[in-house]
Amino acid sequence: MTMLDHILDLAALPASSIPAGSRRMARFSLYDWMICGVAGVREPVAERLRAVIGAEGGHPVADVIGGGRLPARAAALINGATSHALDYDDTHFSHVGHPSVGIYPAALAAGEEVDAAAADVADAFLLGAEASVRIGMGLGAVHYNRGFHQTATAGAFGATIAAGRLYGLDRAGMRAAIGLCATRASGLKSQFGTMGKPYNAGIAASNGVECAALARAGLTSADDGLEGPQGFVPTHSDAPVTENVWDDPPPGRFLFDTVKYKLHACCHGTHAVIEALAALKASPGLDPAQIMAIRLRTSPRWLKVCDIKAPRTGLEVKFSYAWLAGMILSGIPTATDTAYTDALAADPALAVLAGRVQVTGDAAVGDMEAVGEVVLADGRILPFAHDLAAPIPADLLEASLRAKGRGLLGERAEKLWSAVVGLDGLSARVLGAKMGAG
Amino acid sequence: MTMLDHILDLAALPASSIPAGSRRMARFSLYDWMICGVAGVREPVAERLRAVIGAEGGHPVADVIGGGRLPARAAALINGATSHALDYDDTHFSHVGHPSVGIYPAALAAGEEVDAAAADVADAFLLGAEASVRIGMGLGAVHYNRGFHQTATAGAFGATIAAGRLYGLDRAGMRAAIGLCATRASGLKSQFGTMGKPYNAGIAASNGVECAALARAGLTSADDGLEGPQGFVPTHSDAPVTENVWDDPPPGRFLFDTVKYKLHACCHGTHAVIEALAALKASPGLDPAQIMAIRLRTSPRWLKVCDIKAPRTGLEVKFSYAWLAGMILSGIPTATDTAYTDALAADPALAVLAGRVQVTGDAAVGDMEAVGEVVLADGRILPFAHDLAAPIPADLLEASLRAKGRGLLGERAEKLWSAVVGLDGLSARVLGAKMGAG
Repeated sequence: MTMLDHILDLAALPASSIPAGSRRMARFSLYDWMICGVAGVREPVAERLRAVIGAEGGHPVADVIGGGRLPARAAALINGATSHALDYDDTHFSHVGHPSVGIYPAALAAGEEVDAAAADVADAFLLGAEASVRIGMGLGAVHYNRGFHQTATAGAFGATIAAGRLYGLDRAGMRAAIGLCATRASGLKSQFGTMGKPYNAGIAASNGVECAALARAGLTSADDGLEGPQGFVPTHSDAPVTENVWDDPPPGRFLFDTVKYKLHACCHGTHAVIEALAALKASPGLDPAQIMAIRLRTSPRWLKVCDIKAPRTGLEVKFSYAWLAGMILSGIPTATDTAYTDALAADPALAVLAGRVQVTGDAAVGDMEAVGEVVLADGRILPFAHDLAAPIPADLLEASLRAKGRGLLGERAEKLWSAVVGLDGLSARVLGAKMGAG
Repeated sequence: MTMLDHILDLAALPASSIPAGSRRMARFSLYDWMICGVAGVREPVAERLRAVIGAEGGHPVADVIGGGRLPARAAALINGATSHALDYDDTHFSHVGHPSVGIYPAALAAGEEVDAAAADVADAFLLGAEASVRIGMGLGAVHYNRGFHQTATAGAFGATIAAGRLYGLDRAGMRAAIGLCATRASGLKSQFGTMGKPYNAGIAASNGVECAALARAGLTSADDGLEGPQGFVPTHSDAPVTENVWDDPPPGRFLFDTVKYKLHACCHGTHAVIEALAALKASPGLDPAQIMAIRLRTSPRWLKVCDIKAPRTGLEVKFSYAWLAGMILSGIPTATDTAYTDALAADPALAVLAGRVQVTGDAAVGDMEAVGEVVLADGRILPFAHDLAAPIPADLLEASLRAKGRGLLGERAEKLWSAVVGLDGLSARVLGAKMGAG
């Protein structure tokens, strides 16, 4: 079977065949996407996109985060960029991309257009995201290293599949939509640090809606736009690794289950340390005043990224192991963007604790791991360790995501959580309206 | 100077510095684009795009070929695909791409949006097209051979520059627009033979309008999206050749001057033969009944493309040296798509003449050349030769393009020609309305 065959099977999977655990993760991602989207609404990139795309007008079929309704393609473009503006959304490490911000905006907008059930939007997202992760794996690390942004490139295929499923495309139609996406998908990592990065998520989402809509109308395209001669994979990867992409887990089970959420509004390279120290902090009898040393071993790749010893601004705190360790051990929340103030960088008590943090690179420690020990004044040595790859129990994940939501949006977040809990009783349009209203 | 510096200079060139000869070619291209666009309006890809994109609606600021007005981005998408539907539009062989179909739709739509003068639309097209050809040359043959479609990729940059100039972007704004285009541009050759090919032209045009509009609204992007680290050129070409791209001709003079027009509705590989035999046919006293043999030498690369010995359909006639030679020598026009009927393929008189055509590959004959001789019954041998690279005198080119227009559209074409002749007195909106109405 070609990758395209696998994907066409996946795109047509009956809802009844979707494992409950995978569906639960898709709904956690929905909540995470919604809170990131609503929280991003005042970011300059979001405001500017609403101004430009909103000025085009058009039939109001899909909700725009921040208010108003536009054609599905336009809403998907704005909502993709808006939800990625804070860079606080989910990540899948099997291909290294952000699934929700490129795919959910396409699924929701297409779902609103055809008046689908909200549950079908979440299922279409899941299937699109699963296809996207597998395509991203097939493109391989060389694709990312060459300069392509998987969120935008692999993401566009996921968005196409999600929108195409909601539009009711048959197998030939879905094949045409994927072929059109092959010639439409784009996105470069050189945009990182600019508004071009969130724009990339919007590009993926709008490409998905456009290609699915054009295929629905009968546009033809390359037979196998993915792996055929001069298809997307051979033109965009020097060393595709498509052969074993469907082996583990096999079709019917979902790689998407291992999606990861940012629970701290700082560099992802610091999250394992934060989790490890937070667990330690929760142990009874630990008095921060008694801490003499915090010895941390981390993957050497992070030393150039997030080991700023003396941050000067709130932004630099997000890339400082020492300061973040101090925040956790002092009980200062790390989940909210607004916590990272310049005043925090100048806090003398934190500076004392941060001065006791010793960071060493250790090639035996993985990218998603942190290992170390805390030395106390009484001579005790408390080891700590965390691996972000470890599954988080559903109840703990729920609590963490809801805490993240409250940190971002206050009590408004609970309304969005209620919508996700009650998803099976909602239409896509009601879901969109809740998100549009924030 | 980087390529980006050159392009920012070019994009800001005062209208008074544009050479008259280059401006004349841009206006020939405008006419050629208009007749191809209006003639393509009933093609299925055009009708389907009008249905899908038209259904989105939106503020009516730019004319759609075939009628109606839509937002500039939407009109550019439809008009790009519509004008490339017949694949009868202009080609620039320095980078091998179709300049008009990707760039004029963006220039016209943006020009209509801001109520620019029609002459400024043509100038903006020229500057965008020139930049596009130079970028295409920088991407190199490896880009095309890898599978990218220059019409869409390099074309998107040309469309961005043309739209950005009409939107009045300053140097920083144009830089941002080009950076956004770097992450937005796409298009693959694997779509050839499907509706994805004309869609690629629409992709270029709509990307140009979108990126220029977003830069106008203040979206930021990579500093040098073209040649910077992981910019468009290094990610999309394994062997960029950007160093000497601006040497010949130097800035201030235009490579665009050598743009080529299809004057026959058949494979471009046959056009040199057709021109050579048409010149021979025009010589007095040549009686087709006296022709014993037509010996043709052509580049070996064309033998697999357009040497069908016994075409079975009108479409196959377009790829048959023998049949096309017979048509020319019998005085049957080759400029109109409708001439290529299945009945023509079955014409016994043509079959006799075609049977006398002998084709040989000759590596000494260039891709754009044809060389040969006609042997007459009285023993005379009449040599013929043509090189498509040879400049065509302006009056002859005008006559040929107007004949092409009449072949495609009848007398309606003369109204479009009048608009081009009177361009300096028109607004973009009046020009757009003439094209929209066909």
